[in-house]
Amino acid sequence: MDTNRLIYLPLGGAGEIGMNAYVYGYGPKDRERLILVDMGVTFPDMDSTPGVDLIMADMAWLVERASRLEAIFITHAHEDHIGALALLWPQLKKLVYARRFTAEIGRLKCAEAGLPADTITVVEARPQTITAGPFAVQFVPVSHSIPESAALVIDCPAGRVVHSGDFKIDQTPIVGEGWDDARFTEIAAEKPIKALMCDSTNVFSPLPGRSESTLKDNIAELVASSSGMVVATTFASNVARVKTLADAGRKADRSVCLLGRAMKRMVQVAQDTGVLKDFPPTITPEEALEVPRRNLMLLVTGSQGERRAASAQLARGKYLGIEMKEGDMFLFSSKTIPGNERDVLKIVNGFSEMGVDVVDDTGGKYHVSGHANRPDLEHVHRLLLPDMLIPMHGEHRHLREHARLATEAGIEAIVATNGMMIDITGEVPKVVERIDTGRTYLDGTVLIGARDGVVRDRIRMALGGHVLVTVIIDDGEQPMGEPWVELMGLPVTGRRGQPLAEMMEAELDEFVSAAGRKLLSDDTKLDEALRRVVRQVAMEEIGKKPEVTVVISRLVEG
Amino acid sequence: MDTNRLIYLPLGGAGEIGMNAYVYGYGPKDRERLILVDMGVTFPDMDSTPGVDLIMADMAWLVERASRLEAIFITHAHEDHIGALALLWPQLKKLVYARRFTAEIGRLKCAEAGLPADTITVVEARPQTITAGPFAVQFVPVSHSIPESAALVIDCPAGRVVHSGDFKIDQTPIVGEGWDDARFTEIAAEKPIKALMCDSTNVFSPLPGRSESTLKDNIAELVASSSGMVVATTFASNVARVKTLADAGRKADRSVCLLGRAMKRMVQVAQDTGVLKDFPPTITPEEALEVPRRNLMLLVTGSQGERRAASAQLARGKYLGIEMKEGDMFLFSSKTIPGNERDVLKIVNGFSEMGVDVVDDTGGKYHVSGHANRPDLEHVHRLLLPDMLIPMHGEHRHLREHARLATEAGIEAIVATNGMMIDITGEVPKVVERIDTGRTYLDGTVLIGARDGVVRDRIRMALGGHVLVTVIIDDGEQPMGEPWVELMGLPVTGRRGQPLAEMMEAELDEFVSAAGRKLLSDDTKLDEALRRVVRQVAMEEIGKKPEVTVVISRLVEG
Repeated sequence: MDTNRLIYLPLGGAGEIGMNAYVYGYGPKDRERLILVDMGVTFPDMDSTPGVDLIMADMAWLVERASRLEAIFITHAHEDHIGALALLWPQLKKLVYARRFTAEIGRLKCAEAGLPADTITVVEARPQTITAGPFAVQFVPVSHSIPESAALVIDCPAGRVVHSGDFKIDQTPIVGEGWDDARFTEIAAEKPIKALMCDSTNVFSPLPGRSESTLKDNIAELVASSSGMVVATTFASNVARVKTLADAGRKADRSVCLLGRAMKRMVQVAQDTGVLKDFPPTITPEEALEVPRRNLMLLVTGSQGERRAASAQLARGKYLGIEMKEGDMFLFSSKTIPGNERDVLKIVNGFSEMGVDVVDDTGGKYHVSGHANRPDLEHVHRLLLPDMLIPMHGEHRHLREHARLATEAGIEAIVATNGMMIDITGEVPKVVERIDTGRTYLDGTVLIGARDGVVRDRIRMALGGHVLVTVIIDDGEQPMGEPWVELMGLPVTGRRGQPLAEMMEAELDEFVSAAGRKLLSDDTKLDEALRRVVRQVAMEEIGKKPEVTVVISRLVEG
Repeated sequence: MDTNRLIYLPLGGAGEIGMNAYVYGYGPKDRERLILVDMGVTFPDMDSTPGVDLIMADMAWLVERASRLEAIFITHAHEDHIGALALLWPQLKKLVYARRFTAEIGRLKCAEAGLPADTITVVEARPQTITAGPFAVQFVPVSHSIPESAALVIDCPAGRVVHSGDFKIDQTPIVGEGWDDARFTEIAAEKPIKALMCDSTNVFSPLPGRSESTLKDNIAELVASSSGMVVATTFASNVARVKTLADAGRKADRSVCLLGRAMKRMVQVAQDTGVLKDFPPTITPEEALEVPRRNLMLLVTGSQGERRAASAQLARGKYLGIEMKEGDMFLFSSKTIPGNERDVLKIVNGFSEMGVDVVDDTGGKYHVSGHANRPDLEHVHRLLLPDMLIPMHGEHRHLREHARLATEAGIEAIVATNGMMIDITGEVPKVVERIDTGRTYLDGTVLIGARDGVVRDRIRMALGGHVLVTVIIDDGEQPMGEPWVELMGLPVTGRRGQPLAEMMEAELDEFVSAAGRKLLSDDTKLDEALRRVVRQVAMEEIGKKPEVTVVISRLVEG
């Protein structure tokens, strides 16, 4: 009896959209040789992760098993697939494989982080095959909203798995290879597909997806219609869209200027790697200042309302000396990701105040999604006819709906969220273990764990404010002077109109004066007691329970 | 020459959706007699107002002129129109007028706040007329998503103004009076309309609005289709919707149970005031536990994903012993207000994990808006033919679009945002003054100003953490012991893996030891210097600049 098994374990990306990280393993139980697909980030928000810079999957499980890890594969260069590479690679230190464009983006990240230049190995599209322990892996070009996105064909003695990566069905994607049914028919004809791990992002979109090329005329028409400056934003990584926008600008006799670091970098890398050809010449922001408004088109970062990006800065006033004015047009050639609505609307209203006309994608004329819609997913299911389907890249609702879709088509399916180890050796997927997965935060320049309590404390201070109490105890265990209170993030005066800090000090002084030597000599108990006094005054006076830090200084005879 | 003027001054609600508060004045310049229309709140978010409970317009301008304020009028009982009444009334202490249902909701708020029972006077619909100084005010029934919403007809010697309040055009609103063109034709026929201040919420919705009654069959069909428990949420104040949902439940042989304080209160007040008739009998949550799931329908609060409301609690687990299960259905008979997407999706995913089918308003079958759409606004413009239109109740983009719509129809229009005092005495609206408006926060149990810096400090602590430094200086101006550091909301270890607090203490100790007597004797300079040392270590070690509080304790000879 063969005791080897083939396992699938999402560490991130299953039950959320973002921070993709999927592990495959093959071998005897608990001695499987492993590969990792994608190392992505997700983005923080003030509600749950204030002050955090980036969020990524916790690699603890994999780090403990690093000796069993054969290689890392990156499907494409979107941040939710590659963003954690340079940050987490030092914990794993294994060979990384990616296609040329993806590798180049990854290398720039590695260089900034001071990682070796040979961290990433460039792979050509299938038939090139990477052997990684028991696995043979091929990159299959798929269309998406970034160049050179790839699905992976993962072979091992237990069979063939297709990991879809992010994709859409687009035969005419403007930049890069179009979707090709024949590629997938061939893959399934070579060997039956044991399992398809499949993008679920757009499972709720009922109509077939539209090609990137359908936007060309709409955008050209819109850009030509404006008699002022036109500024357009989209995801910088959507190189095809950036080209469509730039072409529309040129066609309308406009000089094109790229604003924002990500926008310039993406176009540069796409040109350097030969992915992007015939991009119109661009001018610098300084040159743009000399061009008549009706002959100018800016392509800018910040389609999600990011505060520091070019869009938001233009909406607040100037960016590199450039200012928008009444009669100009701003185009969101993008959709707003749920959760970013408020930030995007802030920009729209900022422009409204300036008299700038804002055009968004309400009518579907200026943006298409990069993910396969429901009928497209069904099409791929039929092309590959996998024994089983495991939805990935989606919130729980997406995974559940996608599994239902497969089940209805007679395909075995399971909803597998982060940490669920699935054995796919047999006919049906089986949950064999639940890993305690977590999240790692990039906080400033250091990595911290989501459960370290650091962010929890920040949230508490943000909600309740922070009270600092200092007490000095002399070497006779007696208080010296009176307790001192500093407030941060709390109202200055309480309900009765008196200074809150003074009221706390008075209560603390009374308490300390009456406290016995035993309590005064016990740091833990005294800290607890003083904290309670402060919270009680706060509740009475302002109806809130703030965070309290007590510092007890004990003077020791010198 | 008549030196009296008629002015309009929005203090809230113009340039935002929420915290409505509009002032009208008539009389000699700066001696106008004033009325206030609506006293609403808006809701805080973690991004800009962490820890805040409610946000309302700053009444400072009006408080300074309280002797000139004649009365307060409340158009309807939505929180963004009445929510600040009990909180701000003590600053103004003037007679409040409202229709019966609105008044009853207001009275409950006043009672909770300990305000006099006669704060609010009930007014019948036009022709009843309230005289308030130079103003004669009538309440005109309009349809909206809450019972007894009213437009105001405001007459003064300078002419007639119509203040639309929130409205939609709905002849069959299920509960309360339908929209009646004749009412408005008559109003305009009596006296020409000088100005229309008009709801702008749905100016971007291109199709005519749909009646509340169009949902009845869709909802009944959906509720009947489920073989499990059905739980539906909507705004509690949408009494008509609550009735439609309850009727659908009864029709499908389901006992109806109301969950959530607001839901029960609204239905109760609507019944008590005679607005709501024939509401089906309801059962208690305890009784609900005994009813078979297929015979049960719950109507719950929390359509916007509010964490403490019934919906969110059910999505996390239990609420009053009631639990949702696979095969149950949850209906959002509501739309998600921009900014609440993340919270709502958290609920959807929570239910997805339970195997509960979630139905939302994607297809427009289970919800209609309570505001007039673009063609409906145009219809009202034509009905009233005002000399001028001033859009209100909207973000800047809504106001601008609404003004454009009016201008295109030949009506004078102006975009007037909070703080812009508009003279509407003449033929065209004129900006005559800009008031420095602000916001007041309910923070716990006290009111604070948006500019007090309290919330700013909270945001800073949330983003950067808080470092506390204590130093003791003896009576010889020499440091006693070493500086002490406490961290809150900061990583425990820095880049080099050493404890951050200890590294800060070492640097501070070195600094203090080397500091001259002059620096050590100057609190302000020493505080500044120590703060700088802490921030420098933080930048080097964790790449962040935290908030720093320094406490210098000086021992004085006893």
